Amino acid sequence: MLEKTITMAHGSGGEATERLIREVFCRHFHNEYLDSLNDASSVPGAGRLAMTTDSFVVTPYFYPGGDIGRLAVCGTVNDLLVSGAVPKYLSCGFILEEGLPVDDLDRIAASMAATAGEAGVAIVTGDTKVIEGKGGGGLLINTAGIGFLDESRKVGPDQIKPGDKVIVSGTLGEHHAAILGCRMGMQNDSIFSDNAPLTAMVNALFGAGIPVRAMRDVTRGGLATVLNEFAKSSGLSVTVGEDKLPVLAPVRDFCGILGLDPLYMGNEGKLVAVVAPEAAEQALDIIRRSPFGENAAVIGETGKTYEDAPALYIRTPIGGTRVAGALYGEGLPRIC
Amino acid sequence: MLEKTITMAHGSGGEATERLIREVFCRHFHNEYLDSLNDASSVPGAGRLAMTTDSFVVTPYFYPGGDIGRLAVCGTVNDLLVSGAVPKYLSCGFILEEGLPVDDLDRIAASMAATAGEAGVAIVTGDTKVIEGKGGGGLLINTAGIGFLDESRKVGPDQIKPGDKVIVSGTLGEHHAAILGCRMGMQNDSIFSDNAPLTAMVNALFGAGIPVRAMRDVTRGGLATVLNEFAKSSGLSVTVGEDKLPVLAPVRDFCGILGLDPLYMGNEGKLVAVVAPEAAEQALDIIRRSPFGENAAVIGETGKTYEDAPALYIRTPIGGTRVAGALYGEGLPRIC
Repeated sequence: MLEKTITMAHGSGGEATERLIREVFCRHFHNEYLDSLNDASSVPGAGRLAMTTDSFVVTPYFYPGGDIGRLAVCGTVNDLLVSGAVPKYLSCGFILEEGLPVDDLDRIAASMAATAGEAGVAIVTGDTKVIEGKGGGGLLINTAGIGFLDESRKVGPDQIKPGDKVIVSGTLGEHHAAILGCRMGMQNDSIFSDNAPLTAMVNALFGAGIPVRAMRDVTRGGLATVLNEFAKSSGLSVTVGEDKLPVLAPVRDFCGILGLDPLYMGNEGKLVAVVAPEAAEQALDIIRRSPFGENAAVIGETGKTYEDAPALYIRTPIGGTRVAGALYGEGLPRIC
Repeated sequence: MLEKTITMAHGSGGEATERLIREVFCRHFHNEYLDSLNDASSVPGAGRLAMTTDSFVVTPYFYPGGDIGRLAVCGTVNDLLVSGAVPKYLSCGFILEEGLPVDDLDRIAASMAATAGEAGVAIVTGDTKVIEGKGGGGLLINTAGIGFLDESRKVGPDQIKPGDKVIVSGTLGEHHAAILGCRMGMQNDSIFSDNAPLTAMVNALFGAGIPVRAMRDVTRGGLATVLNEFAKSSGLSVTVGEDKLPVLAPVRDFCGILGLDPLYMGNEGKLVAVVAPEAAEQALDIIRRSPFGENAAVIGETGKTYEDAPALYIRTPIGGTRVAGALYGEGLPRIC
């Protein structure tokens, strides 16, 4: 039987590490690639690959609607998807703080395995380190991912043309609000993280031949930061209607009380897609019928720049227009 | 100009993060894949891939003979090499503690770039997070790696046959002794970490057609842990001569004073190779002429088991034999 809490011995690389790997990680993640437990995993390749990595430091590691394990799979899978790749393999590096309850780690590993299944990827290799805790015991997770690039998925902000439509796949700010509410000790039965893999949604868009120009998932920095990047990289303006932005009522109320702007809040399961105008209605319909896409909306369009300065413009409900920059400074630390 | 120390803003995903990435990481790591700064990097693939990951938590992050950045490249490159892969691409996830001096980060990034060049790999994608520090400011680095598997490099403990020779590519325990000495505040001008990429050495062995059965790099857990794994996986015994184990005099003295056994101490640039007996002398010669291999030695051989129990046996100088198990518990925390 494994000990009840993580000790430094679990990070030694010796027998205690091996037992932890077998009794927790292999039990949940097992697949033909991982089970060999070699220094590196051998997997089938492809002509062109996408590679990405993300570290996850969210606190608390369990929060309403999800946990750090689900987040660590979704974040990397979604980064591959929005790059035009079909996600295939994940690596997983655990940095455990001494004192972490093994039951918590087990629950997180189970959540990762379930999310990997949902996202269509295999966790093929991993690493475990243990560091001194600050008392409570916590954990950090890094995932790196490999996807196969598909010729039919050529996307990038450089493909954006004036007049394209901007679609967001659902409501803004849930993950941010859920984490912040949790830290504030809020009794919460209405705000849940939206952490989700976008595999089915993105596959459905490309499966239907939608001319997607660029995609991004909304994470740290929020929608405004993504759209500023699109503007900067394409050399165009992006204009969105403030009243078109979908926000759930409890999140809107939460933001109102705290003076937060959903435009700059992080999600973890929302897609922003720029599509050719003639395909916008079909794309919206496909996204709405996909998992996690029921509240999708067309929120704006791209256009020529004013005075050669690419920017994000927000049309206010009373007819005004304001420029919204990218996030500078910290929106919410340790959100993902 | 970038700030002098890391603040939470550098982890926000907004403009401060972008400036850090451009002014430190891109400046040192730049290559055609990384420079696009997309969510995922697009790289050429191959028929079959090896994937691995490792997190690096060593303290202090500068130590005699190296630093956490050099270690983070070597560790992952060496894991790919010993799996029979040609290392190609690395991802790099930085978790920075608030307060980390940007100059230190810059020096670490420069070291990673130099080591990647030495090892023949490109750092193609990365991620940066900032967490609350414990005052001093530190950092954790995860690297994941992709290599191309080569049909001519089929290695694994299951290939080991009775009578094979065991070669170690150099002296034992330097990395462990350097880290421990550093933490003890030892004035040290004679013990340096051996952190090094084994690319040239392994390429030379396969280039000469040496029938290598199995390879492993000596890290946490030391040589005894590697040889126990070989014994267990092959179902054979491994016997090494205690007086054949190469150990530098200052490391031997250091171990003598502290009661440490070099068999269980970590290196970060030493190869253990099991080769067919007829090729042992040629393999030894190739390793000795490779970078970091000048102190290589044939230290023992594989054989049938006694009473069906695969094990590592140490032949003592006075003619006795003892069993040496794998490391259980912690040799030295945060060594890599």
